[in-house]
Amino acid sequence: MLNRSSESTAIQDYYPDNFSWCYGCGRLNEKGLHVKTRWDGDETLTEFVPRPEHIAIPGYVYGGLAASLIDCHSTGSASLALYRREGHEPGDSEPVPRCVTASLHTDFIKPTPLGQPIVIRGRIKEVGKKKVVVQSELFVNDELCVRGEVTAVLAPAAMLGDEN
Amino acid sequence: MLNRSSESTAIQDYYPDNFSWCYGCGRLNEKGLHVKTRWDGDETLTEFVPRPEHIAIPGYVYGGLAASLIDCHSTGSASLALYRREGHEPGDSEPVPRCVTASLHTDFIKPTPLGQPIVIRGRIKEVGKKKVVVQSELFVNDELCVRGEVTAVLAPAAMLGDEN
Repeated sequence: MLNRSSESTAIQDYYPDNFSWCYGCGRLNEKGLHVKTRWDGDETLTEFVPRPEHIAIPGYVYGGLAASLIDCHSTGSASLALYRREGHEPGDSEPVPRCVTASLHTDFIKPTPLGQPIVIRGRIKEVGKKKVVVQSELFVNDELCVRGEVTAVLAPAAMLGDEN
Repeated sequence: MLNRSSESTAIQDYYPDNFSWCYGCGRLNEKGLHVKTRWDGDETLTEFVPRPEHIAIPGYVYGGLAASLIDCHSTGSASLALYRREGHEPGDSEPVPRCVTASLHTDFIKPTPLGQPIVIRGRIKEVGKKKVVVQSELFVNDELCVRGEVTAVLAPAAMLGDEN
């Protein structure tokens, strides 16, 4: 799970190494969540199985996990969108754009059940040169639990160190 | 850290046991973050030291942690506000109200440095019978990094099981 696979369609598997430590989605963070986001037609898709400790009160997922998943799903979706606009898909040799979150808004529609797979579907609402707005819905058993909207921006060069 | 202390001023130390498993703020969740929120005058205060794995890219905290901290800080602040409105402070024998998040909005003003204590200060913007709006600011070294607004509501009886 921590290694790149040449067959992966998840954008996070193609982030450069220095952008692969994120607790939410970094393939090199051994304690992290390893969020993986890919295209599903024109939508983006993240699937995740919560750990037992990701509890709020018994039976439900804590809100911070939902927010974390939507956050990394959305920055991943933004990278996918910027990459596709350049004519690229995950697995191409061109470097993928790296995005960070400018704003994250989550509405908790109903409590998210714990113990079953979470599915997040994203729609690219707006894609500019450096800014992407992603609308997402988080489902368990096809029931909508959380709705999110994230504005993601290309990571500033200052965040990325000497490579940029 | 997992036990109640009769001297604690943190509201999470007085949540009932069935509301003390939250990954973000439950004192009974051994793998969790153990967010602790208390009054500081008319503001609410949460202090937290991130773990090394809470990284985004080297040197910075991942956004999901900031969102998680603001989430539990805000539901804790909402409990404090509702409790105080009833004339109570943490440590009183009356049961504390338990709140959940209806919406969570975070704006990332600047990257949050990793490795130093995080301080979150909350202001109670609105307190109704069952709904509290909390505005929060997250600082590292007195620099504002993230601004949050949370609408918290009293946990529905259905979430709380047979005790209610």
